[in-house]
Amino acid sequence: MSKKPRILNTTTVAKSRLFHIEALDLEFSNGTRTRYERLRSATRGTVLIVPLLDENTVLLVREYAAGTERYELGFPKGRIETDEPLLEAANRELMEEVGCGATRLEHITSLTLAPGFLGHTTEVVLAQDLYLKRLEGDEPEEPEVVPWARDEIDRLWRSGECSEARTLAALFIINEHLNGR
Amino acid sequence: MSKKPRILNTTTVAKSRLFHIEALDLEFSNGTRTRYERLRSATRGTVLIVPLLDENTVLLVREYAAGTERYELGFPKGRIETDEPLLEAANRELMEEVGCGATRLEHITSLTLAPGFLGHTTEVVLAQDLYLKRLEGDEPEEPEVVPWARDEIDRLWRSGECSEARTLAALFIINEHLNGR
Repeated sequence: MSKKPRILNTTTVAKSRLFHIEALDLEFSNGTRTRYERLRSATRGTVLIVPLLDENTVLLVREYAAGTERYELGFPKGRIETDEPLLEAANRELMEEVGCGATRLEHITSLTLAPGFLGHTTEVVLAQDLYLKRLEGDEPEEPEVVPWARDEIDRLWRSGECSEARTLAALFIINEHLNGR
Repeated sequence: MSKKPRILNTTTVAKSRLFHIEALDLEFSNGTRTRYERLRSATRGTVLIVPLLDENTVLLVREYAAGTERYELGFPKGRIETDEPLLEAANRELMEEVGCGATRLEHITSLTLAPGFLGHTTEVVLAQDLYLKRLEGDEPEEPEVVPWARDEIDRLWRSGECSEARTLAALFIINEHLNGR
């Protein structure tokens, strides 16, 4: 593996309420210099929750996605607030989006979206032993909760309703985890 | 499923060479009005190539990722240029990053990263029947090509070297496709 490039300079080139675009001047170990743009998130990252309703069933939510301008099926997820412990953030988001909490919460892995230009990470949390409890969230409309057989991933990505790589990768990973591989 | 929210207004709030941040004012079918920020990409999207070296082996590349500031293992990918047909873009990126072309190229599915705030899509292309051919790319250093047994996904995400949801989801999907499920 090559030695990491040296960061010569970082400059903020644009900023909004949520996003922060940085230019990064790099020198690679072979002497090549180049400029990249990357997006910094204002937040500590995202938690994605895989709620297990029973041994064979996970819960998805159907929500409007402003980026693609359509309803998308995916696992519930949300921002981890400053100073909020990860598993507390997971349980809070679960109560806000699905209307239940979980007695057992377990951090499984971290995923990135596009490490080349996004620093953003998503923490995957498995939630088991669910109980009913709703918290008011900031959702503009209540997400529709959709139970899904966890071995029907194939049907999920072929449905045309779930295009999100994070949700598909998390379901595959959770299946391997639960199947004891 | 709810009726899609009405887009009342879109405004550019920040812009850089590569990115374009938009504010989106929405009215949901229940009357709630809200403002979202989303990122528009200046490009037509990304192609991700799954190169099959032989029946059981895929090729990954190890490249520096400016977003996470570390080397990441993942499938080769790159921008689809204006007016460039998808499968041509796939073959070009394969020649630039891996040093080979493919006789058989097949579009398998489209993935999104974070549909809530990114419009960006990634087209997954399976590349088979490889032949040696290198094109000069814009990579600052030559990516390291890493063969990987395609049924060892578990080892891949546990390795700590591949965190990218797109690569993991694409490998799971290609395995289902090739295993005839």
